[in-house]
Amino acid sequence: MRLVGESWPLSRERATIESAALALHGRLCPNLVPKLLHFDPIMFLIIMEDLRDAVILRKVLVAGRALHAFAAHIAEFLAHTHFKSCDLFLSSAAKKQAVVRFTNTEMCALTEDVVFTAPFTHDAPTNRHNSHISDALIARLRTNALLLAEVRWLKWAFMTRAEALLHGDLHTGSVMVTDSRTYIIDAEFAFYGPMGFDIGAVLGNLLIAYASQLGHITEASSRARYQQYILQTVADVWTGFAAAFDALWRTHDPHAPAHFRSLFLHSLLRDTIGFAGVKMIRRVLGIAHVLDLESIGDERVRAQAESLVLEIAEALLLKRHNITDIQEVLSIARETRVC
Amino acid sequence: MRLVGESWPLSRERATIESAALALHGRLCPNLVPKLLHFDPIMFLIIMEDLRDAVILRKVLVAGRALHAFAAHIAEFLAHTHFKSCDLFLSSAAKKQAVVRFTNTEMCALTEDVVFTAPFTHDAPTNRHNSHISDALIARLRTNALLLAEVRWLKWAFMTRAEALLHGDLHTGSVMVTDSRTYIIDAEFAFYGPMGFDIGAVLGNLLIAYASQLGHITEASSRARYQQYILQTVADVWTGFAAAFDALWRTHDPHAPAHFRSLFLHSLLRDTIGFAGVKMIRRVLGIAHVLDLESIGDERVRAQAESLVLEIAEALLLKRHNITDIQEVLSIARETRVC
Repeated sequence: MRLVGESWPLSRERATIESAALALHGRLCPNLVPKLLHFDPIMFLIIMEDLRDAVILRKVLVAGRALHAFAAHIAEFLAHTHFKSCDLFLSSAAKKQAVVRFTNTEMCALTEDVVFTAPFTHDAPTNRHNSHISDALIARLRTNALLLAEVRWLKWAFMTRAEALLHGDLHTGSVMVTDSRTYIIDAEFAFYGPMGFDIGAVLGNLLIAYASQLGHITEASSRARYQQYILQTVADVWTGFAAAFDALWRTHDPHAPAHFRSLFLHSLLRDTIGFAGVKMIRRVLGIAHVLDLESIGDERVRAQAESLVLEIAEALLLKRHNITDIQEVLSIARETRVC
Repeated sequence: MRLVGESWPLSRERATIESAALALHGRLCPNLVPKLLHFDPIMFLIIMEDLRDAVILRKVLVAGRALHAFAAHIAEFLAHTHFKSCDLFLSSAAKKQAVVRFTNTEMCALTEDVVFTAPFTHDAPTNRHNSHISDALIARLRTNALLLAEVRWLKWAFMTRAEALLHGDLHTGSVMVTDSRTYIIDAEFAFYGPMGFDIGAVLGNLLIAYASQLGHITEASSRARYQQYILQTVADVWTGFAAAFDALWRTHDPHAPAHFRSLFLHSLLRDTIGFAGVKMIRRVLGIAHVLDLESIGDERVRAQAESLVLEIAEALLLKRHNITDIQEVLSIARETRVC
């Protein structure tokens, strides 16, 4: 793990799963992933398409640029990679074989610790946070029994629910973009897990970008306009995903009952919101922070943005079971104010 | 599959998983499974403890005999085998390795078809049912959109949720008893799945035994007394399981939050009730019927008992999300009357 240095070495074997996931993603979404040109299983060497014209999505969001193709592209990526790797599409035998092939013990253990456990623990040595964030807010997140039960439940879901082949680390630093193209990279965390973990990673990181504009755009109406663009992207990613997933499902199985499809997508929305909340909190209180917030020079302003991230995440975790429409997520973001 | 004959052959390799599960069950619950004396992986030969003094539990229930140790024994078996194979107890790596080892493609495919799919389909060739059961009742179970969505959801849970090493076929024909002993046998369906599937199999088969007394005990007060014993067993199995599981959890992790433990067990109760309902319906409308009902000579009386099974199962499937206490399951059984 680059952040920790040599005291937390990762095996080179993780490149085997990354190359297998990249190859599969390439077959399912050839326009949304870099071409895999070569994998050397002895040297653990991956050679892929040159993406020198593309930039990391997170940097684009920090710079306050709008990207109108991104929401549709990531929705398509999520719908195709999830649907076509899950039990609704594959044969029972083929899916079970894929679960075994993509068993990713080492990288999942990392996520279990740095995403679900340490950030919610007072004394985890890898945690760090901006000292200007209110101690009361942090204590609330680490002691609220309802919230901690939600986080434990989501960790249990992460560890037990082999629903689809996930990217496994789908934050805005795992996406590269040009004006017209989107590339999903860095699939070394790929494994069979709950679909909401990937979708929640996208939405959670968009909401971090939303909150971080407090430190990036000073002029109020410009900031409001860009924040509105980000919230619209949150809505577009979910609705685009849900529509594409449902369309793939109906095409593959014209008799799939409407009531079950609706139940399935509502449950997935609640999962997604929960995982988004966990992913947001870990980026402020855990080991791995993000450019959106770290690039805010003034620590007090940064603490404001970070507190907004924490408060939105807290509301998402506590309210998710009553949410039936993505617009309610947007309302929560808009209505949350840092005390 | 013995029922179908040679047109549905099963591989001998299933004995490998059966012997591995039997060995593990024996380590976790030495008093509740027959001793594994030898397994020959070439001949697929299992030699186990001689159980000639024990009888199949289903026959005891058909005969109307009470067994006062059974509920505590099966609760202990379920709590130990589930807790000690799940992510709450094992290391993340050991559990993932066990999931791979117990991948049971062939036997899971059988369950997916004969338990979750065929019985809810009008034209599945393997289905059969007593012609005296009302066509309207059967049509209702095969067309109610809410009920069918629940069944699809439970099938999805069966296929995706690798929670614990399940027995996988824990009906009352997989249990042998003496007056004081209980033995769990026939683990050839073992795989990592949702805990509620095993617990639901036990409760569903007890509820079948409850309904089938319509055809076995003619004297009203004797029948009511024995049915009350069976319902008490349903309650004792669940409460015994929940208490034992929770105790193992608290011993292993004294800091496991009470709120999460409670959330976990409530969710597991709802799963259990759902799987019980599916398992009950499949024994009346699917390929594999049970002695409790088949041994009722008068087909019209048998249809009454079978209809009671179907109506209780229907109520369980439709009401399970609002159930928070096992006593509500008992109330549903008592209040259900065949029209």
